[in-house]
Amino acid sequence: MKFIKNAVGREIPEYLEGIGELVPFKGVDAIKPTKNKAGAKLRMRIQDEPKLVASLEEAIKKSGLKDGMTISFHHHMRNGDAVVNMVLDLIAKMGIKDLTLAPSSLGTCHEPVIEHIKNGVVTGIQSSGLRAPLGDEISKGILKKPVIIRSHGGRARAVEDGELHIDVAFLAAPSCDEMGNINGRTGKSACGSMGYAKVDAEYADYVIAVTDNLVAFPNLPASIDQTLVDSVVVVDSIGDPKKIVSGAIRDSENPRDLLIAEYAVKAILASGYFKDGFVYQTGTGGASLSVTKLLKEEMIKTGTRASLGLGGITSQLVNLHEEGLMDALFDTQSFDLDAVRSIGENPKHYEISASFYANPNTPGPAVNNLSFVMLSALEIDTSFNVNVMTKSNGVINEAVGGHQDTAAGAKMSIILAPLMRARIPIIVDKVTTVCTPGEAVDVICTDYGIVVNPRRKDLIENFTKAGLELKTIEEIKNLAEQLTGKPDPIEFTDEIVGIVEYRDGSIIDVIKKVKD
Amino acid sequence: MKFIKNAVGREIPEYLEGIGELVPFKGVDAIKPTKNKAGAKLRMRIQDEPKLVASLEEAIKKSGLKDGMTISFHHHMRNGDAVVNMVLDLIAKMGIKDLTLAPSSLGTCHEPVIEHIKNGVVTGIQSSGLRAPLGDEISKGILKKPVIIRSHGGRARAVEDGELHIDVAFLAAPSCDEMGNINGRTGKSACGSMGYAKVDAEYADYVIAVTDNLVAFPNLPASIDQTLVDSVVVVDSIGDPKKIVSGAIRDSENPRDLLIAEYAVKAILASGYFKDGFVYQTGTGGASLSVTKLLKEEMIKTGTRASLGLGGITSQLVNLHEEGLMDALFDTQSFDLDAVRSIGENPKHYEISASFYANPNTPGPAVNNLSFVMLSALEIDTSFNVNVMTKSNGVINEAVGGHQDTAAGAKMSIILAPLMRARIPIIVDKVTTVCTPGEAVDVICTDYGIVVNPRRKDLIENFTKAGLELKTIEEIKNLAEQLTGKPDPIEFTDEIVGIVEYRDGSIIDVIKKVKD
Repeated sequence: MKFIKNAVGREIPEYLEGIGELVPFKGVDAIKPTKNKAGAKLRMRIQDEPKLVASLEEAIKKSGLKDGMTISFHHHMRNGDAVVNMVLDLIAKMGIKDLTLAPSSLGTCHEPVIEHIKNGVVTGIQSSGLRAPLGDEISKGILKKPVIIRSHGGRARAVEDGELHIDVAFLAAPSCDEMGNINGRTGKSACGSMGYAKVDAEYADYVIAVTDNLVAFPNLPASIDQTLVDSVVVVDSIGDPKKIVSGAIRDSENPRDLLIAEYAVKAILASGYFKDGFVYQTGTGGASLSVTKLLKEEMIKTGTRASLGLGGITSQLVNLHEEGLMDALFDTQSFDLDAVRSIGENPKHYEISASFYANPNTPGPAVNNLSFVMLSALEIDTSFNVNVMTKSNGVINEAVGGHQDTAAGAKMSIILAPLMRARIPIIVDKVTTVCTPGEAVDVICTDYGIVVNPRRKDLIENFTKAGLELKTIEEIKNLAEQLTGKPDPIEFTDEIVGIVEYRDGSIIDVIKKVKD
Repeated sequence: MKFIKNAVGREIPEYLEGIGELVPFKGVDAIKPTKNKAGAKLRMRIQDEPKLVASLEEAIKKSGLKDGMTISFHHHMRNGDAVVNMVLDLIAKMGIKDLTLAPSSLGTCHEPVIEHIKNGVVTGIQSSGLRAPLGDEISKGILKKPVIIRSHGGRARAVEDGELHIDVAFLAAPSCDEMGNINGRTGKSACGSMGYAKVDAEYADYVIAVTDNLVAFPNLPASIDQTLVDSVVVVDSIGDPKKIVSGAIRDSENPRDLLIAEYAVKAILASGYFKDGFVYQTGTGGASLSVTKLLKEEMIKTGTRASLGLGGITSQLVNLHEEGLMDALFDTQSFDLDAVRSIGENPKHYEISASFYANPNTPGPAVNNLSFVMLSALEIDTSFNVNVMTKSNGVINEAVGGHQDTAAGAKMSIILAPLMRARIPIIVDKVTTVCTPGEAVDVICTDYGIVVNPRRKDLIENFTKAGLELKTIEEIKNLAEQLTGKPDPIEFTDEIVGIVEYRDGSIIDVIKKVKD
């Protein structure tokens, strides 16, 4: 195997069995697209031909699914999803093998996928997220082809440029009419935005809507509309409502989170980007929630309004919008019940596809509008590279999500992270797996202070003017090591079990099989 | 030139200079798509690169427009449009030549196109509509390549399957933000739905928004969004508001229209399709308006509700929707001020693209949901073929619009037409130009009675049971000829100045140069 060192210093094989030729990562925005968008198969349906079929099996037969094809799912059902397992069980019974499973993400509820890898139904996986126990098993090398990890924007890009061709898309549909007009706003399995599913529906050669809530035609708004859906199947349940969306997420009371958040808000205020019309994205971690809480106070105090909140939408952002502090919300995924309610009620709580959200190969993904994004990290290294995919023991867990996309798009990306977790240092010499390149990481806020990427001289100047005390990444790393000791290196075999794509399709890192 | 007789008996050349090989029309739904959708050029825009450019000229330069390319426009500005002429004037000054002009339609306001044909800027035209004086000139043979006439669905199909590749789309934008989020709902040039423009924006390699109303980011809803728009240009005016949308269209008081409408409503009631959930489309002609008025009375009397109103939306349909008689509206084009108001106010007044409306090569164009459509005709022949494109002197005028699409999709298509106009018979032996094939025409309602296409034995049976007196097409034609005399045949040369595509891309007829 011949290797090339990529722009973050990782050795990338030129060719990988089961995947093909690999392009090493060359830097943020270094690879410009040269192709045209791919296009789904054109299909014609004569007037009254019904789309409603009696069973999932009938829909799969009509789709022409066969050995070697690629199937997709969305993860708006999150950890309550029943559709991936239901479809794979049936496909296994039907005797179809050697499929690539290409959902937008996978969670802990997808443990049964392990069996379908072992029985040969699934031989490839492409996903943004992979959690235990599936992640552990893949790290042990059970999957025939290496897994491909992509960001949300990277997946949309791959679908649009044809790198990821979906033969059959299965869409869990919280509400659907007999023509296939779908939205996630009503029904017992309501999930709000259908942002990931929109991309699949547009580019798949055959689209099957799987619903537990067949409603009268026309079901509006049609997040996915009748021109994209081939078959509609009614099942008892597409998921466990209690696990699809959470109730209101409570503010963190962890003093460490609050400390990190205070540093982050100071950085935001001093950045020069905190002014009317700013665009904001945050996550659901404790420190993130605290940042938004503190920032809201500053917005009220200074009379500063945001134009837009972005990303996975939470009740916190809904609250900012409904109180008139944030003009609009772009929602690819609704994180809680409040977000699900709001997307149906507020016309400026706007549903967007994963491509609109983060696809780098369009003239205007929403991430490029970001002023600030709050991001998490499992590890950060002294080159500012971030790992959000492998645990401290090297095993696959968690998800890349929109991390790469927002970090590259935002004027100021802020990583919120404690110096250590359970006596394991977070700031290290080299991250186990590079997911987001240091080039796109601007600021790190820890419980021991603020670090700015030396590339961002402008921010260093602004922060210094504002009297913020800054630390260097080495100072912070040394402090972490003093507190925890230097961790033992993880032992891997040479076998590659996964590749992490950068959003442009190049390879930013590989994941190797862990030693037993 | 070798000719093949197509399924409506017209002689179609196998090859036509300036166009290429032609596929003769083979019948409704006879040609199934085999290709994949085409895809626009992938484009990347780095973070803060501005889209707002100082002038239209700068935008055109950035687009890379050059000799031989295809440019597109939408016709939501109708006869108030200023953008086609503005752009062509500028392109002429910039010295770019040999362009194909491919708008969704052209009106009388586009007279200056004649000059740009004569000066070599425009050498090809592809459009749904062509009116005087441009139509007259094209009938005289001034255009280098034959004009291609397509229905609204046929145009969407051609754009999607790559037959019509748009290099640069110019979008007149009634409201637009600096990222290119566009809608037609606000501003002095508000036009309501942007249904035709949606298709162009999605498939063009470069998209320029031309607006006279730059609004704050984010402009929502984004009928066309920032992921599709490359440049934004602000101009003083994109059109004459008085001609963009009309005020409320008044009911017809013409007794002939009322007579035709009464026959049509009798046919609707007796058809078997008049029941809860029916789907309805009509136009803005006098007889059409009368049908809707009478039908509303029947809906109230019988307690029958429609699920959907379709097509170009008028105040009449808005009224049915707002009174709870019609659950939803699908709007490709808003015909009057009431429709423009409603699309912004009523969530179930739903904006759809021309592809959603009528593209035959999707699993569910809205026209396939139609129970009834009311259509007009310039001529109808004894094979039920309809001409909506050429005048009684053979000269190009008017538009195919959604005629072919709705006739094919609807369970019952009804042509509303008087027996004669200005002493010229409407029912003839052979129409001058076949636009919609008789196979898709179910019922003709004239001021002298109802004719049913003999193919529709089911309707004949239902109508007869209901006691409706039916006439044959020959009876009606003879009656027309008795009243008007048999018209003299039109004299054409052999030169082909235009082709009429059927919605599937095959050629249903050719238009020849008229003799001076």
